[in-house]
Amino acid sequence: MGHKWVYTFGGGSAEGRADMRDLLGGKGANLAEMSAIGLPVPPGFTITTEACKYYYDNGKTYPPELWEQVEEALAFVERLMGRRFGDPSSPLLVSVRSGAAISMPGMMDTVLNLGINDEVVEGLIRQTGNPRFAWDAYRRFIDMFGDVVMGVDHAHFEEALEGLKRERGVKEDTELTAEDLRELVNRYKAIYRQHTGHMFPTDPREQLDRAIRAVFESWNSERAIKYRQINKIRGLLGTAVNVQTMVFGNMGETSGTGVCFTRNPSTGERELYGEYLPNAQGEDVVAGIRTPLPISALKEQMPEVYAQLLDIAGRLERHYKNMQDIEFTVQEGRLFILQTRHGKRTGPAAVKIAVDMVREGLVTPEEAVRNLVEPRHIDQLLHPRFQDEEGYRKAGRVIGRGLPASPGAAVGRAVFSAEDAEAWHARGEKVILVRIETSPEDVGGMHAAEGILTSRGGMTSHAAVVARGWGKPCVAGCGDIVIDYATRSFTNGRVTVREGDWISLNGTTGEVILGAEALVEPELSGDFATFMSWVDRFRTLRVRANADTPEDARIARQFGAEGIGLCRTEHMFFEGDRIWAVREMIIAEDEAGRRRALDKLLPMQREDFYAIFREMEGLPVTIRLLDPPLHEFLPQELEQQKEMAERLGVSLERVRARVQALHELNPMLGHRGCRLGITYPEITEMQARAILEAACRMAKEGRTVYPEIMVPLVGTVEELRHQRQIIDRVAGQVMREQGVEVAYLVGTMIEVPRAALVADQIAEEAQFFSFGTNDLTQLTFGYSRDDIGKFLPQYLELKILPDDPFQTLDQAGVGQLVQMATERGRRVRPALKVGICGEHGGDPASVEFFFRAGLDYVSCSPYRVPVARLAAAQAALKQKPIAAMVGEA
Amino acid sequence: MGHKWVYTFGGGSAEGRADMRDLLGGKGANLAEMSAIGLPVPPGFTITTEACKYYYDNGKTYPPELWEQVEEALAFVERLMGRRFGDPSSPLLVSVRSGAAISMPGMMDTVLNLGINDEVVEGLIRQTGNPRFAWDAYRRFIDMFGDVVMGVDHAHFEEALEGLKRERGVKEDTELTAEDLRELVNRYKAIYRQHTGHMFPTDPREQLDRAIRAVFESWNSERAIKYRQINKIRGLLGTAVNVQTMVFGNMGETSGTGVCFTRNPSTGERELYGEYLPNAQGEDVVAGIRTPLPISALKEQMPEVYAQLLDIAGRLERHYKNMQDIEFTVQEGRLFILQTRHGKRTGPAAVKIAVDMVREGLVTPEEAVRNLVEPRHIDQLLHPRFQDEEGYRKAGRVIGRGLPASPGAAVGRAVFSAEDAEAWHARGEKVILVRIETSPEDVGGMHAAEGILTSRGGMTSHAAVVARGWGKPCVAGCGDIVIDYATRSFTNGRVTVREGDWISLNGTTGEVILGAEALVEPELSGDFATFMSWVDRFRTLRVRANADTPEDARIARQFGAEGIGLCRTEHMFFEGDRIWAVREMIIAEDEAGRRRALDKLLPMQREDFYAIFREMEGLPVTIRLLDPPLHEFLPQELEQQKEMAERLGVSLERVRARVQALHELNPMLGHRGCRLGITYPEITEMQARAILEAACRMAKEGRTVYPEIMVPLVGTVEELRHQRQIIDRVAGQVMREQGVEVAYLVGTMIEVPRAALVADQIAEEAQFFSFGTNDLTQLTFGYSRDDIGKFLPQYLELKILPDDPFQTLDQAGVGQLVQMATERGRRVRPALKVGICGEHGGDPASVEFFFRAGLDYVSCSPYRVPVARLAAAQAALKQKPIAAMVGEA
Repeated sequence: MGHKWVYTFGGGSAEGRADMRDLLGGKGANLAEMSAIGLPVPPGFTITTEACKYYYDNGKTYPPELWEQVEEALAFVERLMGRRFGDPSSPLLVSVRSGAAISMPGMMDTVLNLGINDEVVEGLIRQTGNPRFAWDAYRRFIDMFGDVVMGVDHAHFEEALEGLKRERGVKEDTELTAEDLRELVNRYKAIYRQHTGHMFPTDPREQLDRAIRAVFESWNSERAIKYRQINKIRGLLGTAVNVQTMVFGNMGETSGTGVCFTRNPSTGERELYGEYLPNAQGEDVVAGIRTPLPISALKEQMPEVYAQLLDIAGRLERHYKNMQDIEFTVQEGRLFILQTRHGKRTGPAAVKIAVDMVREGLVTPEEAVRNLVEPRHIDQLLHPRFQDEEGYRKAGRVIGRGLPASPGAAVGRAVFSAEDAEAWHARGEKVILVRIETSPEDVGGMHAAEGILTSRGGMTSHAAVVARGWGKPCVAGCGDIVIDYATRSFTNGRVTVREGDWISLNGTTGEVILGAEALVEPELSGDFATFMSWVDRFRTLRVRANADTPEDARIARQFGAEGIGLCRTEHMFFEGDRIWAVREMIIAEDEAGRRRALDKLLPMQREDFYAIFREMEGLPVTIRLLDPPLHEFLPQELEQQKEMAERLGVSLERVRARVQALHELNPMLGHRGCRLGITYPEITEMQARAILEAACRMAKEGRTVYPEIMVPLVGTVEELRHQRQIIDRVAGQVMREQGVEVAYLVGTMIEVPRAALVADQIAEEAQFFSFGTNDLTQLTFGYSRDDIGKFLPQYLELKILPDDPFQTLDQAGVGQLVQMATERGRRVRPALKVGICGEHGGDPASVEFFFRAGLDYVSCSPYRVPVARLAAAQAALKQKPIAAMVGEA
Repeated sequence: MGHKWVYTFGGGSAEGRADMRDLLGGKGANLAEMSAIGLPVPPGFTITTEACKYYYDNGKTYPPELWEQVEEALAFVERLMGRRFGDPSSPLLVSVRSGAAISMPGMMDTVLNLGINDEVVEGLIRQTGNPRFAWDAYRRFIDMFGDVVMGVDHAHFEEALEGLKRERGVKEDTELTAEDLRELVNRYKAIYRQHTGHMFPTDPREQLDRAIRAVFESWNSERAIKYRQINKIRGLLGTAVNVQTMVFGNMGETSGTGVCFTRNPSTGERELYGEYLPNAQGEDVVAGIRTPLPISALKEQMPEVYAQLLDIAGRLERHYKNMQDIEFTVQEGRLFILQTRHGKRTGPAAVKIAVDMVREGLVTPEEAVRNLVEPRHIDQLLHPRFQDEEGYRKAGRVIGRGLPASPGAAVGRAVFSAEDAEAWHARGEKVILVRIETSPEDVGGMHAAEGILTSRGGMTSHAAVVARGWGKPCVAGCGDIVIDYATRSFTNGRVTVREGDWISLNGTTGEVILGAEALVEPELSGDFATFMSWVDRFRTLRVRANADTPEDARIARQFGAEGIGLCRTEHMFFEGDRIWAVREMIIAEDEAGRRRALDKLLPMQREDFYAIFREMEGLPVTIRLLDPPLHEFLPQELEQQKEMAERLGVSLERVRARVQALHELNPMLGHRGCRLGITYPEITEMQARAILEAACRMAKEGRTVYPEIMVPLVGTVEELRHQRQIIDRVAGQVMREQGVEVAYLVGTMIEVPRAALVADQIAEEAQFFSFGTNDLTQLTFGYSRDDIGKFLPQYLELKILPDDPFQTLDQAGVGQLVQMATERGRRVRPALKVGICGEHGGDPASVEFFFRAGLDYVSCSPYRVPVARLAAAQAALKQKPIAAMVGEA
């Protein structure tokens, strides 16, 4: 019979196989796979991508044998279904869909109900006893065929529908009678004729022929070509065409439709979990006209069908090695599986299912880690959730939507200043701190609050970074609301929330909810520990934490951190009375004055470092030298400036002059990072001394300590050399004084594009690199993370950016610099330790990239550590050759 | 006699040659060259670098034949000089110097007067009749030998000198008598013994041996090794040692010393120009004890020596093909040339000398362009200069030093506001505008002023950029002065300048001078035109200008610009009443309101573009779409905000709210560039329409026009695609409306590091690239050009940066991005036109880099165009193989 252009499937077998994606397209290969494992999918056939290629290579003609093979395949389907295509007495309807090896917008969408004409519709009425359904199917078919196959704008059909509704004085489509729909079929046919110049084709075979050709044509639609260009999709033959039997759940009481999960998606319990609606089509469920019954209803009504479904559920789990979400239809007592896919689940369910499936022998630990739990599941597990998210959405209690800056759920009464937050908290109130934006001065109030809401700032704003560090929910940059400090209220234009009103924050989704929602506290089960132990088995990338305090360090270690990748010393400068010593240093007239102030800070910093070293005993601790511009430590408000003048015994003019002198137009690009350490070497000296003295104390106590001193914002090797000379000199002094040796490293942040470009030079002086991907992203794009809110939403909407680059690393741009710096650095210093300590260290997609780029570790906020551990394991497994091919629905 | 380790020179010949740098070192090769062309250099010899290598390869021993060859060479020198080394009756003294193939700090410096001892000093006294000179030479020799050869700290000798001066109750060294100096020799010998444990060597041959070994040792001094490491100097054998006769100009009335230029360095006239001091040593001239006579004095006193000098001058010019600066000494009627080097000269002299030397047949036009005029000479030529720079410096009239932000000299009375500048100018006063910094609102006053002085801001601050564009002198970021607007004065702590006081600015050096200095106006001679015509003959890189107005365009074209590389449309937005339409657009509530305001701007922009196209008829004009953040167009002061509210008929609250809403923490990284055109596509539409309508008008008038529309701040190809779609759509509309076709290009700035990294993607949409190296430098380093003043001076001082990267392109970092983007862009689009329009377009070193990187053109401010043309020609010639090797002094 010459070349094979058509592959059938159905009846528990298939001519094609799962691995024939190139020939059958993704959809066709999946249908073949489902049939091959014995699932009762509605039978049908796939016309190959080769046929599409032939069509184009030969002046848009079919291969000579094609139609003959289509007829044979149709006959095969007819035999299986006991119906006939175009036969009014027992009609067979089909769907026609495109399907290339890679799914692609711009290609032909679905045409359903193909095969209806004026005779067939009568047959359908006889069979279903439901004229309304039959006429509705017919008018939908004309609409779809006209729109999708013939290019008649759907709006024309919509107009006719609206016109008829006006004539009948009804509002909803469902209020139209069967007679109305019959009239609509006539009007639709007239529209079709008017816009195509032809009668609507009544021959089902002509309908099928035209639909197949339309699928082929859509392969070269402008949009599809553009899409392939942009996404650099090359080397595909064409699209396949899938023709599949339509099955109906509305053919009486032995028919019905349903969806079910093979396990409970909320808890992970092993049970069939879902809904069933007798004598109904899928769209009835979607339309919400009738309320579905629990799946147990099917067990009562058709126990054999239920048993068959249960059996299929098991078979699917064994085959796909994952919990499945199944769509099915029962047509006159016969079960058809329409679709199966991996089921969505909650975090707790994901972990339980993974651990259970390993115990049941369905999957190996490796497969469980690779496929059954997503990083976001782990994230959910670590934070409180709302009991009923759908509930508050349906009830319309969402009053604003901002950035999901720090995950979890929080409930409290709104307060509008850090002082109020602390005061209310002190008297036992739960509060949400609402601010336009936060600054280091607000840290006390932020700590006292259950959650933080800001109207300005991005994913890496001060509020977001601090909140994530504490695992405290935060919604940032919520532009929907306007905050008025004067009246202590905020409004979204409709609802006004005043001080003391209860609100809830969903830091995972970015929603702001009016009122106090019920919370579910997180609970780390034994399954979690089991699962994480498997995770670490496959992981090679190390995971550290960003932690500035002993408390953070303790939490991080509990979550499995293997050291500290970023300890920000400036956060310590704000604590308690230290700020006064810092301000004294800044206001000093000369080096001697600065040194006097620094001498006061030294013992405090030393104690900080010692306490952190204790928490991280035996693990590396990377300490970054002072980074922010000095003006961040000075008060900007007159009142506080007066207080500072009084307290430090200087004139107000002097304070104001200093504030003014330190003012910068672009502080992000200003006098900060190692630029401070170079112009004020005494600051670097003090910090190096504090670190080394703390480390020597550890050593004297017989405790292992691995201090890594990190110089920020280096752009030239000369900067690092300058700072390293100071550090090495001080280290030598301290060790001589203390009479003990401590091994320490000196390295640098790579956060300025130039540092990545000259990484080979910098590696001559650096013992480690740590990518500061926040600043690197700011500088590579030229985006201020504080100001990006003005255009980012539109950029995401217009798809100018695929993601917020401060959340997910921009691999094409910033990622190049990461790879370049790693390669160039290691070329000069093969043993160079390379890590990353920006916000991206906790983002799964970014973690995978860092793994591939060959980094040694990622460092993220303590509450992201387990997430990063899983992402790192999955990245390693992704690169490893897969032992057994696992299919995907 | 085995291997040759020693090469003699002197007496009109040399054993070595100019091209033996590797063997003789740079100094040795130069001495050989000078001798070989017959110059009477003091004879001597060079010990080769191979000897140094041998020394290290053989446990620090000399090659066996070395000393014998040194003795032979000494004998050769003795014969030529008629004196003998170590012979008190006719002593020969020598100098010993190191000299590798590449000059290198950390190696041994000079030892002079070697060969003196207690007997020889008496011989010297007899010969010169000058015991003071002889004892001074002796004590200097012990100091140098002790310090340089034996490592006795110079401070010890200095202490002894100061001690003796105290004892004698004198202040100046010159007040010490011969007897005092003899006493000092004794004390120096004691110091030597004390610190070395040995007697001072009295045998001249031992002195020489020790000095040679010291030179060899210095090759591996810590500092020299470090220097070679940092500068990656590898493959050198070692250092050579130069031993040369000392000659003395103080041996009576037939002796003397002088310096002269072969042509007048101020005017370029062909005449011997210089100074002569009879019976004196070079140091007497330096010490300023005696006033030198004009060189004509030598002609009178020793006509034969003068004639010999004249002959030598001609010979030197023919050999070095350049004007020379000669140091000479006459010893007892015998002329010795100590040194010759290319002479420094003024801009006018450089051009005259170049053109004259071509006319005289001394050099070809190619050699003249390659070697005889530096880009800074051209710069001098185009701007007024002060008549007597040395004068005001010596008189101590320099009251501050800032950045040389725009070259030239200006004189005027100090005013402290733009309004005052305009008012004073209107009544005929010359003024210097003194501001802390300038903003676009000051443009009128800046234009009225002779020059601009700011106390804040860098080389690319607003004041600097605008001033350079107009060729108006500017000193920027002068941190030495504090400006007080309230009292209309500024002070440097010592001198206070009040409103109306005369000051002068040297924009070429950055000096601020008290009082009104005399000016020399520039005059472009016929020689200038001749020279520039040669320049263009060798140039391949095109030179365009940055010009925002028809006037700028006209000047640029006069200076030889081959098009406009950057026309900043926002500057037009400030002119006259336009700012009100701009403000109306910014304050508008919605798109419709914005469009109404833009409709008012359209005809004005169209006229601007038309006038510029007219000036540049037949040449390309690159117009950049709106770039700055919108807040730059709004008034920041309350009074002006009130005026705006009144004039636009909106509430003050609305104005203030808009100002607040547009506020950005880091405006450099904010909502600007194409980000504006994407969020407000109607702005791009208006600008594209204005450009295309103006271009169509040109076309209809039969005039050639090449508009190139440039999208700023692109970081992703999606941004450019978005903007290009708008431009292409509008262009199509306009051309249909106007019924005429105009070829136009759409391209982009490459100024965000990411754009360089993904240049291959961007080139899919861009028809040209133009590097915005200002912003690219800001982002690659993470430096704000407005704030860099806080640490740049220290960075330059500590050599953390070699240059201000905003003046001279950072080739190692930013340059990588330029090369990368050019290569990647051309890989995708081989015909891609690539240029640069940042401030670096007028910097000679940067122009050379851009040429090597393969750019098509550079664009700079109009007054830099001739400079860039010369730099481009020199870059091209540098790459071209040199026809005849030309030596260097």
